[in-house]
Amino acid sequence: MEKVPITYLSPKERKGLIVVITGYGKGKTTGALGMVVRACGHNMRVCIIQFMKGDLYAGEWDGIKKMSCGCQVELTYTGKGFCGIQGNPYPWREHRANAQEAVGLARKKIMSGQYDLVILDEINNALHLKLVDLEQVLDLIRNKPPLLHLVLTGRDAHPQVIELADTVSEIQEIKHAYRQGIEPQPGIDY
Amino acid sequence: MEKVPITYLSPKERKGLIVVITGYGKGKTTGALGMVVRACGHNMRVCIIQFMKGDLYAGEWDGIKKMSCGCQVELTYTGKGFCGIQGNPYPWREHRANAQEAVGLARKKIMSGQYDLVILDEINNALHLKLVDLEQVLDLIRNKPPLLHLVLTGRDAHPQVIELADTVSEIQEIKHAYRQGIEPQPGIDY
Repeated sequence: MEKVPITYLSPKERKGLIVVITGYGKGKTTGALGMVVRACGHNMRVCIIQFMKGDLYAGEWDGIKKMSCGCQVELTYTGKGFCGIQGNPYPWREHRANAQEAVGLARKKIMSGQYDLVILDEINNALHLKLVDLEQVLDLIRNKPPLLHLVLTGRDAHPQVIELADTVSEIQEIKHAYRQGIEPQPGIDY
Repeated sequence: MEKVPITYLSPKERKGLIVVITGYGKGKTTGALGMVVRACGHNMRVCIIQFMKGDLYAGEWDGIKKMSCGCQVELTYTGKGFCGIQGNPYPWREHRANAQEAVGLARKKIMSGQYDLVILDEINNALHLKLVDLEQVLDLIRNKPPLLHLVLTGRDAHPQVIELADTVSEIQEIKHAYRQGIEPQPGIDY
């Protein structure tokens, strides 16, 4: 297939972006994981912390492990699932304790200076459910190293988080397979 | 950090899904790339074909190469950039010829039976710009192997493609860094 000259962009000014991915449609966590692929191509060091997701296996846990032969990426899943929905059996205070540990870990990772991209998966939702506090999230955003990219995913992103963000995408559900009775499929849904 | 018992989902019925990611916000290609990470965790074989993207380097080109030490994934970028916008110098007939080659490659890959997930990146846009024909895209969707997941990204997804899809997400732009004069940043924007 015929190829054309390739342009290689290079920004005059580097800036660590705050990216928020929110909304009720499918693709928030997935979008953040795609940034890992892109970042890996640029030899960036990536850290992913998943909130409220420690109770349900997701393909990315092994996907990230398998990628790490060629990419500098680590993933920590935490929590006891989605608080207060889908028959989740754990009380709020346990979810809160888990999320508090996770936000402490996030702070440590962000401030370490050892990463170029940190993804806090579902933290918007954790904030909405009061498992973490607004001040904790704003502190991470305001005090992160200037060149670090910080990605915050999850529905119901807080207006003050959106205010501080550089790029915000809202994913709307137009259709979802499960509404037609199709079970979650590996590789796509988990 | 305290761990809880992990549930491993496994659908009673496997089904190859048609997933469409459309809209004007950031995260369509990125969302599809995230599915690669997830699919890799499930040992799935992945093929990505990018339409209209052969003129501008993107981190995922190298990211996918680096992942392939642990994951079964290949990426082919094709085309001469976005047809008719941003000062693109190539005439429509050249974009069309490129996209026709790409859709031929897509058909071959899809029908080969060698993949579990095929991503046709920007094909919605290519269809909107008449670089590929509606019948060509519908043919791929209707005649793909039943267990193959097919992901179609790009703005302006055709209503008949949406009609046939199982899951459709529309990404809306709430904010974008470039509107505040911030240049595209490696690892996030490309």
